[in-house]
Amino acid sequence: MMQAPLVLTSFFKRAESYFARKSIISRTSPHKIHRLTYGQWAKRTRCLADALTKLGMTRGTKVGSFAWNQHRHLEAYFAVPCSGAILHMVNIRLSEEHLIYIINHAEDEILMVDVDLLPIIENIAPKLKTVKHYIIMTDEPALPKTTLQNVLSYEDLLATADEEFQFPEDIDEEAPAGMCYTSATTGNPKGVVYSHRGLVLHSIMLSMSDSMGIAERDVVMPIVPMFHANAWGLPFASVNVGATQVLPGPQFTSALIMDLIEQEKVTLTAGVPTIWIGALQEQEKKERDISSLRAICCGGSASPTRLIRTFEEKYGIPYIVVYGMTETTPIVALSNYMSWMDDWPIEKRIEARAMQGMTMAGIESSIINEAGEVPWDGETMGELRLKGPWISDEYYRDERTADAYRDGWLYTGDIAVRTEDGFIKITDRTKDLIKSGGEWISSVDLENALMTHDAVFEAAVIAMPHAKWQERPLACVVLKEGQSVTEQELLAFLENQFAKWWVPDAVVFLEEIPKTSVGKFLKAKLRDNVAEIYPKSLV
Amino acid sequence: MMQAPLVLTSFFKRAESYFARKSIISRTSPHKIHRLTYGQWAKRTRCLADALTKLGMTRGTKVGSFAWNQHRHLEAYFAVPCSGAILHMVNIRLSEEHLIYIINHAEDEILMVDVDLLPIIENIAPKLKTVKHYIIMTDEPALPKTTLQNVLSYEDLLATADEEFQFPEDIDEEAPAGMCYTSATTGNPKGVVYSHRGLVLHSIMLSMSDSMGIAERDVVMPIVPMFHANAWGLPFASVNVGATQVLPGPQFTSALIMDLIEQEKVTLTAGVPTIWIGALQEQEKKERDISSLRAICCGGSASPTRLIRTFEEKYGIPYIVVYGMTETTPIVALSNYMSWMDDWPIEKRIEARAMQGMTMAGIESSIINEAGEVPWDGETMGELRLKGPWISDEYYRDERTADAYRDGWLYTGDIAVRTEDGFIKITDRTKDLIKSGGEWISSVDLENALMTHDAVFEAAVIAMPHAKWQERPLACVVLKEGQSVTEQELLAFLENQFAKWWVPDAVVFLEEIPKTSVGKFLKAKLRDNVAEIYPKSLV
Repeated sequence: MMQAPLVLTSFFKRAESYFARKSIISRTSPHKIHRLTYGQWAKRTRCLADALTKLGMTRGTKVGSFAWNQHRHLEAYFAVPCSGAILHMVNIRLSEEHLIYIINHAEDEILMVDVDLLPIIENIAPKLKTVKHYIIMTDEPALPKTTLQNVLSYEDLLATADEEFQFPEDIDEEAPAGMCYTSATTGNPKGVVYSHRGLVLHSIMLSMSDSMGIAERDVVMPIVPMFHANAWGLPFASVNVGATQVLPGPQFTSALIMDLIEQEKVTLTAGVPTIWIGALQEQEKKERDISSLRAICCGGSASPTRLIRTFEEKYGIPYIVVYGMTETTPIVALSNYMSWMDDWPIEKRIEARAMQGMTMAGIESSIINEAGEVPWDGETMGELRLKGPWISDEYYRDERTADAYRDGWLYTGDIAVRTEDGFIKITDRTKDLIKSGGEWISSVDLENALMTHDAVFEAAVIAMPHAKWQERPLACVVLKEGQSVTEQELLAFLENQFAKWWVPDAVVFLEEIPKTSVGKFLKAKLRDNVAEIYPKSLV
Repeated sequence: MMQAPLVLTSFFKRAESYFARKSIISRTSPHKIHRLTYGQWAKRTRCLADALTKLGMTRGTKVGSFAWNQHRHLEAYFAVPCSGAILHMVNIRLSEEHLIYIINHAEDEILMVDVDLLPIIENIAPKLKTVKHYIIMTDEPALPKTTLQNVLSYEDLLATADEEFQFPEDIDEEAPAGMCYTSATTGNPKGVVYSHRGLVLHSIMLSMSDSMGIAERDVVMPIVPMFHANAWGLPFASVNVGATQVLPGPQFTSALIMDLIEQEKVTLTAGVPTIWIGALQEQEKKERDISSLRAICCGGSASPTRLIRTFEEKYGIPYIVVYGMTETTPIVALSNYMSWMDDWPIEKRIEARAMQGMTMAGIESSIINEAGEVPWDGETMGELRLKGPWISDEYYRDERTADAYRDGWLYTGDIAVRTEDGFIKITDRTKDLIKSGGEWISSVDLENALMTHDAVFEAAVIAMPHAKWQERPLACVVLKEGQSVTEQELLAFLENQFAKWWVPDAVVFLEEIPKTSVGKFLKAKLRDNVAEIYPKSLV
């Protein structure tokens, strides 16, 4: 067979030649929605590559992006890797300390910044050691006043660049194309480098009928940010097949999301559960026609079954739970219904849907505990390990590599069970697992159950030290506006569903649950907070 | 990213672990249909690998198969390559001379033979130089009498083999997995070797929504033979996603095909146009419920537009033309409707459907003539060239490699145009092209037009020498039973559709058109035949 490398350039050329007439809809500010064709986008992408090359970008140069989901970001998604350089998608939600760390650690030489995010970068710029050029992405003809040095305008650069810039044809498929940093429980974020091969295979798998099935006919709206784990790979997959893309831009609301779905006839969208909880509330307030949707993909944390059921039963929209992490490009599993589930009762089907599902073709998975590989019984917990061509094999220049990457596997830190159908169900993080009297209790199962209660908006269950049982669960609950429920009522509600020893010893009611920059419960912080407001031991 | 090789073993393990309950329906004779689960199939496949290993199969050993589409053949499809050996799928329709050549040329050491094909092998066995063992695939407990030496029973071998045989884990993705020979216009067939990587990528691309979209929910029936270009990759793709497979076995009829579609609720099937012409006639004779079909895939030669339209309009079944060749694993393009074609008039849509379509993700195509790359005008003809990870880069130990593989491209020998939509339309073979007065005439366009005539069953158009114009077209026509039409009527029929100089100078009526072993018109033979029965020159 020919030595034809799996590189992103082939995606770019495919979109440019076959799908030039297709559209990209890009919201860059609350006042501006751009509509451009793939043909225009492709020319602009070549211009960007030319401009960056003139600024000194060459093989292996790190170019940082600090931006929302918008078309200029999508231009960088291809202009940088197709030139043989590396796009570092900087998570805009990190603390200043962590931003300084990762930009310096990655050694970004050029930083492309959305104009509304400029103040953050101005604050940290004095501490950035490697950045030589700042490029401001703005719709305005003039650049804003800024304290930054070496500032350029994105549109000015493109205006004088060559739209026939030629990408190199000798990029190795193993060459790095992109990188993201993922938050660590303690210490600095850890860097993950994505290769062309990994991104290409991941994208193609996303287009398989049995995963997301992304196709030319789709109108894809990634709500998951492009600064977080490649926006789950949707922009790459969409370019390859020529799907219409809707990029919702900065500071969007639930109302905006629902308006875009209705107006642009979005067929596939993806985001964390918080997005869909908000979307549903918005839909109940003001009904839009969302019948164009053929699937909602949701991941990042557990989806309440009631949410899934409402979308599937009331609106007829498949709600696919996806699983992955920054280290895995990210998608490795999806909860698509298998044909043999068609005649299951609806409750059992929704239960399957809420799981992380079956691993995609190409991914090998293993769930182990002290006794070895766990049986497929839906009960026995173990740590999930992963192998595959889009699973990273190290943290970038980081000693913590040795903790996570062992024996040829990525140890995910997620505790999971596997059902007899082969579905993976995450029950906890290794660090959040509650070990009571030597037995494991799944905080995620308890949280999911609590969140089915009418009065509960969010719930997190954490381990508290206990003299006799080592650890016991404590439920932290945020109520819905205007709702009330007592601790006793909630515990009684759980008693009907779980073994007695699983039921938390107490419930505390909070205003909010602290979350990470990507919307996951920050349980370490929660434990600290609770220790303050709930000083009595559970002993 | 991890070094996770793209090997067929991952498909096998996926089916074995996730889809053990799914079915394979295998017809091995007119009297026997087997139903086995993927779980049973996987055990039998491991047993076969064990048995072959005990017979001496090791890395790189060539194992020949001489068999129909049935489950034992599917076991060999994985047992051999997953062991690091190479499955040589011998085309049972070749002449004895060519069979002897290819089995000796490939150096097959083991030959697995369907019992009803035994007489062919008995005839040639004395001339086979490398075969050490013959394995007979039969449902009968006892082997038939045979003149062959070193004969073993497939089922006996499996009965004593280890169903926990472990496949090696260190197979390189570039390692050879299979091989097929393709007929040459003159001389011996030419061998093509398929790598694990090529087969894996090809299969995954077949599962993309925008190609065949093969999925777990599908019931896939490959009518295209497993001894011809990997049965278009359907068996590999089906195993990867756990699709139910229906293997129609030996000597099937149109009636059997339609019965199987109805009884097994086939959703996707694939074969050459002759199959679908016959199927439609059968359906018109005795109507079956074929509403389970979500697509018919057809390739190998041009599909009459009337056939396509009947399936799409009368039965509501998408009829997807696919394009490829033995050298390309084989699928490289498909005629899926693009979203922008939805509001085209039906005639224009069907015309697009009849084309070879858009190349799949991963495949680079080029159509060139003396003036370079042809414009996308649907008119300018050139030779189609292909590049990509499942395109072969040589003929196996064959000097003819230099003719077809040049400048990093496979020169397909197909003459094509490209439409403004990027669709490829094959207009001829380089060797069959008619060059009249320096201009090219497409024999395929004329044939397609002739085959839309009510009275015409088949039509082939060939070049005849001409003193003034160098070459002029001659139409060779087979009429439908009980139909009649005159030469003048047919020529008048064409005059309405083509430029005057394209219209053939004459029509000859034949009983049949000679075809290759895979059902393609054998134009060289036809030219010879016609020269005999139509001795007057066209001058």
